[in-house]
Amino acid sequence: MKLDDRGLLVVLSGPSGVGKGTVRSALFNMTGHDLVYSISMTTRKPRDGEENGREYYFISREEFLERIKENKLLEYAEFVNNFYGTPLDKVEEQLETGKEVVLEIEVNGALQVREKMKEAVFIFIAPPTMADLYNRLKARGTESQEIVQARWEKARREVKLAYLYDYIVVNDTVENAADKIMAIIRAEHAKTERTIASYTKMIGDIED
Amino acid sequence: MKLDDRGLLVVLSGPSGVGKGTVRSALFNMTGHDLVYSISMTTRKPRDGEENGREYYFISREEFLERIKENKLLEYAEFVNNFYGTPLDKVEEQLETGKEVVLEIEVNGALQVREKMKEAVFIFIAPPTMADLYNRLKARGTESQEIVQARWEKARREVKLAYLYDYIVVNDTVENAADKIMAIIRAEHAKTERTIASYTKMIGDIED
Repeated sequence: MKLDDRGLLVVLSGPSGVGKGTVRSALFNMTGHDLVYSISMTTRKPRDGEENGREYYFISREEFLERIKENKLLEYAEFVNNFYGTPLDKVEEQLETGKEVVLEIEVNGALQVREKMKEAVFIFIAPPTMADLYNRLKARGTESQEIVQARWEKARREVKLAYLYDYIVVNDTVENAADKIMAIIRAEHAKTERTIASYTKMIGDIED
Repeated sequence: MKLDDRGLLVVLSGPSGVGKGTVRSALFNMTGHDLVYSISMTTRKPRDGEENGREYYFISREEFLERIKENKLLEYAEFVNNFYGTPLDKVEEQLETGKEVVLEIEVNGALQVREKMKEAVFIFIAPPTMADLYNRLKARGTESQEIVQARWEKARREVKLAYLYDYIVVNDTVENAADKIMAIIRAEHAKTERTIASYTKMIGDIED
C-alpha cells in the first residue's frame, strides 16, 4: 500500500567520470520498479535512426528560447552551439501517473532543478576515492593528456558540491550503488511530508 | 562502502494494536543487517528465568529516580507502580560500534526520545484502515468490551500524532512493512547530513 501515489523526480548527478550512466543502467535493470527516463529536448538535428520523442524531442532554436523564457525547462545547457534541456511539462505528466522519473545530469543542471522543483530527490554519486576517480577519467580511452587534465579539473570542482544534495551514494560497486538508490526511492515515498495528506484522509473516519 | 559508520537509533512506534511487535520481529528475521534491540531498565522484580541485562536491566527505584534526575534515560514511563525506561548510555555504546539500535515503544515514549536525540529516525507504523485497527484490537483475545473500548480510545488519540514522525509505514503486510523499514535504514545512512563529514575527508586529497 502506497500513501504517496505521485512519482518521484530522482536526480542522479556526480562528477565527470564517476560512472553515472552505468549506475543508472543498473538501476533500470532492477525488477519491480516503475522508473522512466526523462527524455531531453534539443535543438540539434536528429541523426540517422533517431526518432522524435524517443532519443530526444527535436525542436527549433526559436522554440527552445521560447521555453527558456516561459520557464518551461527544469534545466538546460548549451553545448557546441546546440541547446539541451529537460521539459518540465513532460516530467510533470509522468510524475502524475505515479512513475518515478530519473534524470541523469551534470552537477550544474542538477542545481538548476533544485531551484525549480524542491520536492525532487537529489542524489550525488561519489567515487570511493579521488584516486579512483582520476583513474576512471584516465582509463576512458584514447583522449589526450590535455583532455584528461581538463576533465579532472572539472571533476575536482564538482566533487565539492556534494553538500548541496540530499544523499551521497558511493559508487564502490555498481550493484551497491543501484541498490542504495532503490532504497532511497522507497524510503522517500514513506516520508511523512509525502504521505501525511493521504494518511490524514485515511484516519478521517475516527471523527465519526 | 559506508560513509556513515555510526549506527542509527530507529524508533518504531504506532498506535496500540497496529502490530509493532510483529513488524519488529520480521525486521530482525531479515538477513544482512546489524540490528540490535535496546534493553530497557525497570524497577520491577525479575521473574523466574529472567536475567539482568538480557530481558531487562533490573535496578532499584532509587537508582531509577537518580537516572531520571541526571537525564540518563531516553524515555521512561510508569506502569502499575513500576518504572520502565531506555538507558541513554547503553544505546550510545551500541551506536558507537556501528550497530542500528531499534526501539519499539509507545507514541508517548517516542516523543520523549525525539527531544533527547534529534538524529534518531522516527517511524510511525500505521494501519491500512481504521476499521482494520479496530478489528485487530477486538481480535486480541478474551478482553472485555470495556478494555477494547479503552484501547480503541487510546489508539484514536495515537493515530493523530503520526505527523510528528519522519516516516509513515503502512502495516498492510508484515513483510512489506519490514522491507520498507529496511529501505529507510539504508537510505538514512546515505543522507548528506550523515555522510558529509567522511566524504569531505575523502575528497581532502584534491587540495594537494
